[in-house]
Amino acid sequence: METLAKLEVHPLSEIEHLKVHGRTTGRLSPLTLFWTGSAVEFNVRGSELWVEVEADYDTYEPWISILINSVPVSRQMVTAGRSFICVFRGMNKDVVKNVRIVKDMQAMSGDPENLLQIHAVKTDGDFLPVEEKPYKIEFIGDSITTGEGAIGARTEEDWIPMWCSAIHNYSTMTANKLQADYRILSQSGWGVLTSWDNNPRANMPDYYEKVCGILTGKKNEALGAFEENDFESWQPDVVVVNLGTNDGGAFYSPEWKDEVTGEIYKQRLHEDGSYHEEDIQSFENAAVRFLMKIRKYNKQAKIVWAYGMLGIPMMPAIYRAVDAFKQKTEDQNVSVFQLPNMTEETMGARSHPGATAHEKAAEELSAYLRSLL
Amino acid sequence: METLAKLEVHPLSEIEHLKVHGRTTGRLSPLTLFWTGSAVEFNVRGSELWVEVEADYDTYEPWISILINSVPVSRQMVTAGRSFICVFRGMNKDVVKNVRIVKDMQAMSGDPENLLQIHAVKTDGDFLPVEEKPYKIEFIGDSITTGEGAIGARTEEDWIPMWCSAIHNYSTMTANKLQADYRILSQSGWGVLTSWDNNPRANMPDYYEKVCGILTGKKNEALGAFEENDFESWQPDVVVVNLGTNDGGAFYSPEWKDEVTGEIYKQRLHEDGSYHEEDIQSFENAAVRFLMKIRKYNKQAKIVWAYGMLGIPMMPAIYRAVDAFKQKTEDQNVSVFQLPNMTEETMGARSHPGATAHEKAAEELSAYLRSLL
Amino acid sequence: METLAKLEVHPLSEIEHLKVHGRTTGRLSPLTLFWTGSAVEFNVRGSELWVEVEADYDTYEPWISILINSVPVSRQMVTAGRSFICVFRGMNKDVVKNVRIVKDMQAMSGDPENLLQIHAVKTDGDFLPVEEKPYKIEFIGDSITTGEGAIGARTEEDWIPMWCSAIHNYSTMTANKLQADYRILSQSGWGVLTSWDNNPRANMPDYYEKVCGILTGKKNEALGAFEENDFESWQPDVVVVNLGTNDGGAFYSPEWKDEVTGEIYKQRLHEDGSYHEEDIQSFENAAVRFLMKIRKYNKQAKIVWAYGMLGIPMMPAIYRAVDAFKQKTEDQNVSVFQLPNMTEETMGARSHPGATAHEKAAEELSAYLRSLL
Amino acid sequence: METLAKLEVHPLSEIEHLKVHGRTTGRLSPLTLFWTGSAVEFNVRGSELWVEVEADYDTYEPWISILINSVPVSRQMVTAGRSFICVFRGMNKDVVKNVRIVKDMQAMSGDPENLLQIHAVKTDGDFLPVEEKPYKIEFIGDSITTGEGAIGARTEEDWIPMWCSAIHNYSTMTANKLQADYRILSQSGWGVLTSWDNNPRANMPDYYEKVCGILTGKKNEALGAFEENDFESWQPDVVVVNLGTNDGGAFYSPEWKDEVTGEIYKQRLHEDGSYHEEDIQSFENAAVRFLMKIRKYNKQAKIVWAYGMLGIPMMPAIYRAVDAFKQKTEDQNVSVFQLPNMTEETMGARSHPGATAHEKAAEELSAYLRSLL
Repeated sequence: METLAKLEVHPLSEIEHLKVHGRTTGRLSPLTLFWTGSAVEFNVRGSELWVEVEADYDTYEPWISILINSVPVSRQMVTAGRSFICVFRGMNKDVVKNVRIVKDMQAMSGDPENLLQIHAVKTDGDFLPVEEKPYKIEFIGDSITTGEGAIGARTEEDWIPMWCSAIHNYSTMTANKLQADYRILSQSGWGVLTSWDNNPRANMPDYYEKVCGILTGKKNEALGAFEENDFESWQPDVVVVNLGTNDGGAFYSPEWKDEVTGEIYKQRLHEDGSYHEEDIQSFENAAVRFLMKIRKYNKQAKIVWAYGMLGIPMMPAIYRAVDAFKQKTEDQNVSVFQLPNMTEETMGARSHPGATAHEKAAEELSAYLRSLL
Repeated sequence: METLAKLEVHPLSEIEHLKVHGRTTGRLSPLTLFWTGSAVEFNVRGSELWVEVEADYDTYEPWISILINSVPVSRQMVTAGRSFICVFRGMNKDVVKNVRIVKDMQAMSGDPENLLQIHAVKTDGDFLPVEEKPYKIEFIGDSITTGEGAIGARTEEDWIPMWCSAIHNYSTMTANKLQADYRILSQSGWGVLTSWDNNPRANMPDYYEKVCGILTGKKNEALGAFEENDFESWQPDVVVVNLGTNDGGAFYSPEWKDEVTGEIYKQRLHEDGSYHEEDIQSFENAAVRFLMKIRKYNKQAKIVWAYGMLGIPMMPAIYRAVDAFKQKTEDQNVSVFQLPNMTEETMGARSHPGATAHEKAAEELSAYLRSLL
Repeated sequence: METLAKLEVHPLSEIEHLKVHGRTTGRLSPLTLFWTGSAVEFNVRGSELWVEVEADYDTYEPWISILINSVPVSRQMVTAGRSFICVFRGMNKDVVKNVRIVKDMQAMSGDPENLLQIHAVKTDGDFLPVEEKPYKIEFIGDSITTGEGAIGARTEEDWIPMWCSAIHNYSTMTANKLQADYRILSQSGWGVLTSWDNNPRANMPDYYEKVCGILTGKKNEALGAFEENDFESWQPDVVVVNLGTNDGGAFYSPEWKDEVTGEIYKQRLHEDGSYHEEDIQSFENAAVRFLMKIRKYNKQAKIVWAYGMLGIPMMPAIYRAVDAFKQKTEDQNVSVFQLPNMTEETMGARSHPGATAHEKAAEELSAYLRSLL
Repeated sequence: METLAKLEVHPLSEIEHLKVHGRTTGRLSPLTLFWTGSAVEFNVRGSELWVEVEADYDTYEPWISILINSVPVSRQMVTAGRSFICVFRGMNKDVVKNVRIVKDMQAMSGDPENLLQIHAVKTDGDFLPVEEKPYKIEFIGDSITTGEGAIGARTEEDWIPMWCSAIHNYSTMTANKLQADYRILSQSGWGVLTSWDNNPRANMPDYYEKVCGILTGKKNEALGAFEENDFESWQPDVVVVNLGTNDGGAFYSPEWKDEVTGEIYKQRLHEDGSYHEEDIQSFENAAVRFLMKIRKYNKQAKIVWAYGMLGIPMMPAIYRAVDAFKQKTEDQNVSVFQLPNMTEETMGARSHPGATAHEKAAEELSAYLRSLL
């Protein structure tokens, strides 16, 4: 193979024009991508571009998707190690390409060794400014927002990164329809108060202030995952909260035992199948507290609790929580929106919403958000 | 990173159960994939699978797509060198996965150094038989059948492998709808008589007998590309010929000069814009000869000339050619089918049919083929 | 014209097998159809069928739709007078046709002279039993449920029966998808507490016990519109309440003055645009009372408050009302479902949902109801 | 019923601004509508409009559809007699409405008594000019172009006008998409050379010069059906010929015997199932002659033979005929276009294309015609 173009390596920190998507520490040497949908974006004028990526993991390997001029052209697993991946080659060197390298899997709370970093790019071209989008949206969710099942056959049952997609995902689709930059915070199985299996620590609110607080371990600490997030630098126009599905599931799951304290946690059902008042109230209280916290850090944002892609059993409680929040705060910029339920036809892998379910949700949600913006 | 599974390398030639798609020499040490859509397929029972791939090229790099249980999950450029690519990991070791590694770019007549080979796989599992599909279809075409433009933004103009797709391609979609195994022979810009720019050598018929005769060079010779194809081993139920678009274009392109002989080639238009009788007759003669050749090697196949995704100016000539063939041979198993034209809405990259144009074509074509089968 | 068939007139009351849809008095000499979607249905074995219809009105004329074997084949205005309308002729006399003559406009509270009656049919055939559907659904709503705007150009602004459709209507579509018999109670502009213009009498709950209590006048009294409805004879599996849109509108409309008492009615907004607490509470109280009343007469039905085709501003109040009802009654068979909002693309005449908006609503609603049944 | 508007009767012949669609004699006292899709169109500024219609028949009754501002709002059988039908009432008298009263059934060659006439209208308003559309299209066809089966359940088998639609018809849809005025000439069962059952008189070409030559009888003679058509007054930009389906069917039908002469007619198949050369040649000759005749009367029109909604067995013969015509005449303005085949999903009543099959055909055909215009 002969290389025609003379390629020059550019560490990210030395590139004048680049745009980082998703919550990060601000460090670029290298750039650690924590959350799904986080990305680095360039406008490159050149014939060839490579990106230097580093990955590690014990259990769950990272995946990336590459978008050229907003169209996904490549999706691949990134195996352990540090290497250059070719993004494009053989293109007209005078034409500017918009390139986005996207982390296509969620932050992996279950694998403290998991790592995806971008060190540098290699090109014969130069970099032009990347425009700001007119809006900013933050999505906070669970497996639905992780895009679990949005790729893969319906028969798939393994919980592996391959079946998760930040691209065929209502959040990305909604942002595209509204011409918005966006960030995703999501964890499969997590909730507002507890996870699907009653683990009270697997809740999104407790970790909201940090860059990526749901992670654990020394390695992530060193990477800055537990630093305070710099909210000032990125103030969303809308915060979409798509949580409650796992809180609802907890009522039907066995109790969770804290192995250290011996404490038992369980959201209880009455014999007639209705939620126990105290426990549903705990969920509502947690939801109110979370809305308080979101508002604290996002003073101007419309907050939209968007829920329903896997049924709506928790909707009354969500409405009550939002009502309670509004009464306490006199804050009118919070609302609830029901997302269309997955159907037999739109189901994807692992009994989760497939790509068409996400497309439907994005159509409805984007129309609603447009009415708010 | 720790590896949990004990992986064993299996050279392809030592695997009892595997299925090779596309015309090949039969060699497995290694397996060279020439045509787009050619592939190796396994049923693997194991938790992890890697595939050892080798690539080379001067200009146009190979791409692959990976399908798990018939769903595309990964698409990536394969840069020069030999290496293992991870197909899946962390899956339930007791469940059988159907895996297909597909060459996702056409045979590169313009780059004699271009090479894509599969050497081996590495897994902790074992291999089960891959079932035969009830039908077999061979597709012969040009850029449309190469899937040029089926991926990428509409603004794309570079001729590079990235924009070509064997997956978002009417041929693959048609085969899937009919539950058929299939092979593709395609070259962008080529025709029945000449290429779009009047080059008389860039015709598909002359090379039909060979494994991949449209290639050139010592390297491809050594790989067996110019060996006689073993037609007996794979007799299609249908041969779909999607050619004529470039033969039509030649009438509007400048003459082509053979630099060796000095000879000039040009399909001529009359002043009123109609095709010159002699030249359109040459096309028809070439089409008849091609039908003869296809029939020679595929005695039982229905032959369907499917044309129209980029307009139908050559349709009268195609019908005359098929008529002439039927009169000469009294062979009734040949027909013509008009494919739906690309529209403004269904256009993809490089002014070629996008994925939705291919989807529409596959719907119509598969319904027609079903009526023949 | 020669008549081939010997036709015999059958007064409705003398036909053994017929099925009446919609709330009626039970009288058949003649049958008065009050509500939109009310109908008479036959299974006729014969070559020809006519139906004797009588209509009258001051302002708003009745319309009917005719369905043969569940397909709408005719829709026509019925002008004043009594006459036979031909339903079909020239058909195979040995084949049974299912025929439904549907009132295709709402009960006209604004025109006490409005009348649509079926007296008799004329046929050469005989009548066979009409099967019961597995489910029964009652829909209670406003202009959306009247199908206002589901027919007609977007530019239409007149309030006339022509633009209203019981057929291209989410209620009928939902019932068809679920194989359900159904009844519609609807009035354009009406609400739970008040109409869109603050008229407290234009509320659906006050008239729920009567056959068609929203009507007025001696003529309707004589027809039995104000008789008690016989709930025992038709117990729905589901009651769908699609109200609230006009109650929401009242907050933005001028006050309404009772010309007799001089009393003023107005749902008030705060200066910041939020609903006045007392007034939204009045709506909620009215909603709770309505749920009580519905439950009183439909002991076993699932009650679903389905709302959202023209926005969701009243949804928090609806959820609070349903919560309050459930707390008071410990009745769990009540829920809220958000219908998909009309979009720019799905808008019909008079800025109301068009046929495609109804289709989308029916898809979502029928999937939800299926999960309850 | 009280009538608020003062209505005045206007005989058609006294209305300054009106537009007649379809081939007619030019007479307006009254206007006889012969062909399906023929119509009278007004722009009325008034609150109420009635149309005086006269109908008669032995066997097949006429149907009409009413369009207000281009939207179909009513469809009804017109029984024998003369009467006023109300088109609209209660509308804003200052707004102009576009109104079209359309004959919604084919010219009835099988019922010489069949008659549909418009005598007058009655309104409180006045009439404004009706604009010319930018294009004109003439459609010539069989049952497909009659819209047979475009309305009605799949189970319907009777041949009656109720199942035929000029509205849910590819011809009307195509004209609408292209903003074209249009005329339809169609007869179910008829062909170019013979009908489906080998009747050589049931061919469309023989009657092309007349206003409505396919009719018979003294009554139609008196109405002017057999007068020479005034081609000068309406020159189409495109003539679409959708014939051949019944000519193809004749090969599979029993012979037809002329009861007067005793002559036998039969399009023959060879034993191997192929068409007999002489007979298919007769079809081709008839097609060439028809093209000659169409060209004679429509000097500037593009002629498009559009075929395929019920399969494409005759397509080779159609292409040969068009080739032969072009060779004889050096006329390049003739082409062939394959329409999308009806599928299991798009089938309507009587095993004919349903409304969605017509919609698909209109999408493809209108895109093709747009490329010619």
